[in-house]
Amino acid sequence: MSLKLYFAPGACSFVPHALLETAGEAFEPVMVKLHKGENYSPEYEAINPHHQVPVLVDGGEVITQIIAIVNHLDHRFPHCNFLPREPLERTRALETLAWMNNTVHPTFTHVFMPQKFAGSAEAQAQIKAFNAAAYGPMLGEIEAMARKAADAGRPYLGGEQFGPLDAYALTFLRWGGFAGYDPQGYPALWAHVQRMAALPAVARTIARERLQLNVYKAA
Amino acid sequence: MSLKLYFAPGACSFVPHALLETAGEAFEPVMVKLHKGENYSPEYEAINPHHQVPVLVDGGEVITQIIAIVNHLDHRFPHCNFLPREPLERTRALETLAWMNNTVHPTFTHVFMPQKFAGSAEAQAQIKAFNAAAYGPMLGEIEAMARKAADAGRPYLGGEQFGPLDAYALTFLRWGGFAGYDPQGYPALWAHVQRMAALPAVARTIARERLQLNVYKAA
Repeated sequence: MSLKLYFAPGACSFVPHALLETAGEAFEPVMVKLHKGENYSPEYEAINPHHQVPVLVDGGEVITQIIAIVNHLDHRFPHCNFLPREPLERTRALETLAWMNNTVHPTFTHVFMPQKFAGSAEAQAQIKAFNAAAYGPMLGEIEAMARKAADAGRPYLGGEQFGPLDAYALTFLRWGGFAGYDPQGYPALWAHVQRMAALPAVARTIARERLQLNVYKAA
Repeated sequence: MSLKLYFAPGACSFVPHALLETAGEAFEPVMVKLHKGENYSPEYEAINPHHQVPVLVDGGEVITQIIAIVNHLDHRFPHCNFLPREPLERTRALETLAWMNNTVHPTFTHVFMPQKFAGSAEAQAQIKAFNAAAYGPMLGEIEAMARKAADAGRPYLGGEQFGPLDAYALTFLRWGGFAGYDPQGYPALWAHVQRMAALPAVARTIARERLQLNVYKAA
């Protein structure tokens, strides 16, 4: 069955994008330019009425939501162990993935797209600043995870192989640069991200999305 | 192993609370009074540093995040089929559960606790109104799911048995009342919720939390 991934460079779609590259099966990457509003086109709305990336199309199945796509890829590519097999470890990986997906990610959405949460420019400016401040401690929590993994000699955040937590962590550290956080302030996470970025599959993903890992600019 | 659930009446912890009642094994329900700030006490912070409900304690394991708790309960009580076994159906259930958890739920959080997203009273008032407006169409999407299930003769939203989508849908319809939405405006969802509320396990959960299903008050 043919695989197709709709992604936007630097967006959270990096997570399934890096997993697909890791899986090793051919897939068609389709770039969606969010800054040009392509995700609001009638064509894209027909694919995902929520106007979001990522969307995975596997044969005739259109799958949205990172957690669902991860579940699907985990089942489709069992050799990759994208999620741990052991039930409690799997629950732990999902616990962190859910927190990343419902807390860290939306906090940054408030910084990047405050217009999604209020109408006036003043309210949007407040939302942006308030949530940029909240984002730092969240990166701090991921830094603690990376430090704990490093201390225990575990190369990945959520299992024995590269997986969604590693890809999400890379994305969040990048976004941190836009929110005013220097990656150097999170040394264990920064080291982890650089190590992940050097994995061949992840490096290919970064190249296709043309990403810079450190986008921080000192004020 | 002993089971303990930390919950707050009417909060999203209703989801695992109703699942645990359904599972049939004895558990200790521990009420956390959010309006009294009990979730910010040092004792609770030691259990969940994110200050949220629900928290499931299973023997020595402390598990947070609805999606992770659902995964754990699904594994622990396989006869309940809280999530479908068939991989694509499971992905579909997780897709809806993730959307509920990262979109519908946080949209209501903006209505109920706008102070989590901006500092000033004006910005908070704007956030509240903006997100209350966004919440209605989301209930409309769940109404469409309920209608589709009813038309197909399926008694539950996400599988062959009562599960997390049904419990979350009930919670969202209740919250809708606080956001200014009359349950009567969502007839298929309202019928579904009333049917779920009549299931003995769900009725016991509602009784323990002392919930009213329809909290809508006409302006």
